[in-house]
Amino acid sequence: MSEDRIRYKSLLDKVTDPDAACQHIQNGTNVFISGFTAGYPKLIPQALVRRAKAGERLKINLFAGASTGDAVDGVLAEADLVDWRRPYMSNRIMRQKINQGKIHFKDDHLSRLSAQVRDGNWGKADLAVVEAVAITKKGHLIPTMSVGNTPTYVREAEKIIIEISAEPLDLEGVHDIFIPEDPPYRMPIPIYRASDRIGKPFIDMDPNKVVAILYSREEDSCAVFNEPDTVSQKIAEHILDFVAHEIDHDRMPPSLPWQSGVGDVANAVLNGFIENKFFKTIDLYSEVLQDAVLDLIDLGKVRAASGSAMTLSHKARERFYKELYRYRDKIILRPVEISNAPEVIRRLGVIAINTAIEVDIYGHVNSTHVMGSQMMNGIGGSGDFIRNGGLSFIVTPSTAKGGKISAIVPMVSHVDHSEHSVDVVVTEYGLVDTRPLTPRQVAEQVIKKCAHPDFRDLLWDYYQQAIRTTGGHEPHILSDAFAFHERFMATGDMHEG
Amino acid sequence: MSEDRIRYKSLLDKVTDPDAACQHIQNGTNVFISGFTAGYPKLIPQALVRRAKAGERLKINLFAGASTGDAVDGVLAEADLVDWRRPYMSNRIMRQKINQGKIHFKDDHLSRLSAQVRDGNWGKADLAVVEAVAITKKGHLIPTMSVGNTPTYVREAEKIIIEISAEPLDLEGVHDIFIPEDPPYRMPIPIYRASDRIGKPFIDMDPNKVVAILYSREEDSCAVFNEPDTVSQKIAEHILDFVAHEIDHDRMPPSLPWQSGVGDVANAVLNGFIENKFFKTIDLYSEVLQDAVLDLIDLGKVRAASGSAMTLSHKARERFYKELYRYRDKIILRPVEISNAPEVIRRLGVIAINTAIEVDIYGHVNSTHVMGSQMMNGIGGSGDFIRNGGLSFIVTPSTAKGGKISAIVPMVSHVDHSEHSVDVVVTEYGLVDTRPLTPRQVAEQVIKKCAHPDFRDLLWDYYQQAIRTTGGHEPHILSDAFAFHERFMATGDMHEG
Ligand SMILES: CC(C)(COP(=O)(O)OP(=O)(O)OC[C@H]1O[C@@H](n2cnc3c(N)ncnc32)[C@H](O)[C@@H]1OP(=O)(O)O)[C@@H](O)C(=O)NCCC(=O)NCCS
Ligand SMILES: CC(C)(COP(=O)(O)OP(=O)(O)OC[C@H]1O[C@@H](n2cnc3c(N)ncnc32)[C@H](O)[C@@H]1OP(=O)(O)O)[C@@H](O)C(=O)NCCC(=O)NCCS
Repeated sequence: MSEDRIRYKSLLDKVTDPDAACQHIQNGTNVFISGFTAGYPKLIPQALVRRAKAGERLKINLFAGASTGDAVDGVLAEADLVDWRRPYMSNRIMRQKINQGKIHFKDDHLSRLSAQVRDGNWGKADLAVVEAVAITKKGHLIPTMSVGNTPTYVREAEKIIIEISAEPLDLEGVHDIFIPEDPPYRMPIPIYRASDRIGKPFIDMDPNKVVAILYSREEDSCAVFNEPDTVSQKIAEHILDFVAHEIDHDRMPPSLPWQSGVGDVANAVLNGFIENKFFKTIDLYSEVLQDAVLDLIDLGKVRAASGSAMTLSHKARERFYKELYRYRDKIILRPVEISNAPEVIRRLGVIAINTAIEVDIYGHVNSTHVMGSQMMNGIGGSGDFIRNGGLSFIVTPSTAKGGKISAIVPMVSHVDHSEHSVDVVVTEYGLVDTRPLTPRQVAEQVIKKCAHPDFRDLLWDYYQQAIRTTGGHEPHILSDAFAFHERFMATGDMHEG
Repeated sequence: MSEDRIRYKSLLDKVTDPDAACQHIQNGTNVFISGFTAGYPKLIPQALVRRAKAGERLKINLFAGASTGDAVDGVLAEADLVDWRRPYMSNRIMRQKINQGKIHFKDDHLSRLSAQVRDGNWGKADLAVVEAVAITKKGHLIPTMSVGNTPTYVREAEKIIIEISAEPLDLEGVHDIFIPEDPPYRMPIPIYRASDRIGKPFIDMDPNKVVAILYSREEDSCAVFNEPDTVSQKIAEHILDFVAHEIDHDRMPPSLPWQSGVGDVANAVLNGFIENKFFKTIDLYSEVLQDAVLDLIDLGKVRAASGSAMTLSHKARERFYKELYRYRDKIILRPVEISNAPEVIRRLGVIAINTAIEVDIYGHVNSTHVMGSQMMNGIGGSGDFIRNGGLSFIVTPSTAKGGKISAIVPMVSHVDHSEHSVDVVVTEYGLVDTRPLTPRQVAEQVIKKCAHPDFRDLLWDYYQQAIRTTGGHEPHILSDAFAFHERFMATGDMHEG
């Protein structure tokens, strides 16, 4: 396969095996990898694990685009190979070690990240390890299924290792790579429509920095999407009905692009467009593109789908690869500093839909810390979209853990997004548009319309007592604000008695 | 004065007295006024109060740029004339009634506000009441000392009342008015340097909508700035030293523009530049310009000072008005959707400095609610700058209320800005750059470097116990997280027993 994959001939010399390549990593090396749910290198992590198993004492600092698969975060965490990890992850074992304080983790807004690396704030960029489908004749890189921070990592790194994947060469042309100048010399990011391409279909690379190239037959681990359940479907229905209503009543223009977060609910919202008669064609200006996007493209319902990565189920990926020539016109994968750029999100007026762990009666949102202390995944791009979207929805099933946890609580145990940034709160029970309401009005409506019926009385009691005893613009009883959480931690159930 | 103030002759007919003009306001009227700390109308509020005193039952919905003076928020709140008020206020009586639930108040990010009004999300724009120094020959408006949301209010309002102020006509040329298109047709805001002018020196107005014009000799109430005390000076020193150090070590370019929030500490930071040898000339891309800006201009230390309003002490205002010809080259007053635009703030890499009520050990910030429930002023533009600045400082004296309150607490009682958006925490004791730290490392350093020595042991005990009992990425003991606040509410002191 070398001929069409490594078109810059002098780099053919650099082809080697994972164990040899892996020698460029030492204890303390800062390793900047490609990968954003998909598109991460798989061979180098395995080689590192072999070294650890052979008894070598080795810890690296691992920086990616966002989460990666088990083949990176899972195996490296398990082998205790990671000292620092930034940003966002979603792996069970890594999460555990982060929460034990064994892996250092810092949770960053994804849109700011590349610029911070260019500023040198993340330390020396010792090494980039990136997955690519090909190296062009001029020595540039064609990425695989994600872009993330790879363009910046490749530019900043002293050394580069490339894993050449066997994924279809037809991916060439999907990517749109643009690195903005940094302040104070930055110019506007010239995206005016979700479909605009502003860069190159490859990542600029200095081939002299390449120290090793590996051929890889490894694949991204696939996403598993559950069939939308009634809860997700209800949430999706509320959102689409609300937006249709706003458009009908001239409070919103008809063609704002959509962003939809990660996971099942996010996928269900997009599935909602399939049968929907009101929305004929939509634009997506999102972060991660999931299965539903392909279905919508097949139905002719998507004008353009822009993101930083694609995470597909096994079935969807087969279909995507087979008919790439057709999907390629619609799909654009960008660096995350562009897919998540506040400037562009606000300019386009993106309708943002993101999932919360819990929401409080005043509309503050916890996206990251279960019971206030335990990291789930990270804030990811949720802040970029929620804060800058033209209309921003926070969605959550009204309960978790089989009904034992209310996702609507008096006060969230951790705040990632404050009331000021959230427009509409949605559960399967209903939706509250907080924009024209005072905090007290928000509380009344969120309790009545969004909370699970089991918890409404408890929430109402708290709220009424807070008004009576403390009062204020946003009445709270600080000694009682976490009673729901404390009850759950003591008894395993937020219900009383 | 009519000749040079009302240059659009047919409008001379509309000159009338406040009581007559005030008849355009009825019970339930949505009144959109100019004003952003300065530049608010003064005669119409007085006339409204006369009607209330005469026994009329009257409530209006009052929308401004941000806070106004006592002559608006104070007198209207006192006379119970306000049903709804948005956004931001800083008046004692109005604050009281908001906290009692008697005035409806919603706290918005200032940058989003004009667009929401244009979308119709704030209800019908019945009436705009705006202060101006003149009406041009073509019937356009020259504002006074603030721009705020006035351009949008004037465009959207069905009727307009103008209070022609006696302030110097030399203000003509200070303003730069630009209303962006709304999504999905918005284009980039073409500001590339703090000094760029992109609009017109007047507010477009349809003169046919003008229903009344008043001549006014009323003046804005002046700001009172205290001489920087040692606490503010220390805070300013920490910030300037840190930025100089970052620039020296090539982690920051040398000429990023500065934003400095409202109040004494903010003024002290700018005063810090006066004697500083490292910073020769600075750009300001800020929201409210205060006294220190004039001093810096006089010293030749300011290249450009951009904001949405000027709030000056009495002495500074006299000086400003006298030498406007000289200051006018340096000062640009913009609509708040431009001064606070996330797009521009991030593009320019603004160094943002904003004051908190309290900060917690993990870097979450409360800017608005004392003890979690009582509204102070509002979030204002703090979120716009903190979230999008290239480097964002949160400053607070380490204690409040004569040392009885620690401004560093285990968990803030209200979150406006989450850990993810705050870069550096500063008190008079020291500074912590949170960017390269895990939450646990942030906690250790904030307790050691920022907290008042009186409270360090208490904070440290909480933090150590949280690690031991709960653990997690961001260890908290939910039942104890507000112990400092509860103690204060019970005993009037956060110190222990
Ligand atoms: C919030 C988030 C974790 C929800 O993920 P999801 O896959 O839709 O939701 P799930 O219902 O599967 O919940 C995930 C886990 O959290 C648990 N959970 C959900 N709500 C909870 C609550 N209120 N309290 C405690 N646990 C809760 C679930 O039980 C589940 O636990 P399990 O893995 O042990 O089964 C996820 O969306 C996220 O990480 N968001 C932050 C980043 C983001 O928004 N990115 C998109 C930006 S473009
Ligand atoms: C936070 C803010 C209130 C501080 O204002 P300031 O004038 O610098 O601070 P002060 O020290 O005078 O504090 C104001 C009041 O809050 C009280 N206070 C301060 N910290 C407190 C704390 N931790 N707990 C309780 N009260 C506190 C002070 O005692 C004072 O009360 P008083 O008016 O009864 O004397 C003000 O900066 C603000 O409103 N910020 C939000 C909006 C913003 O940042 N705008 C700028 C964006 S461009």
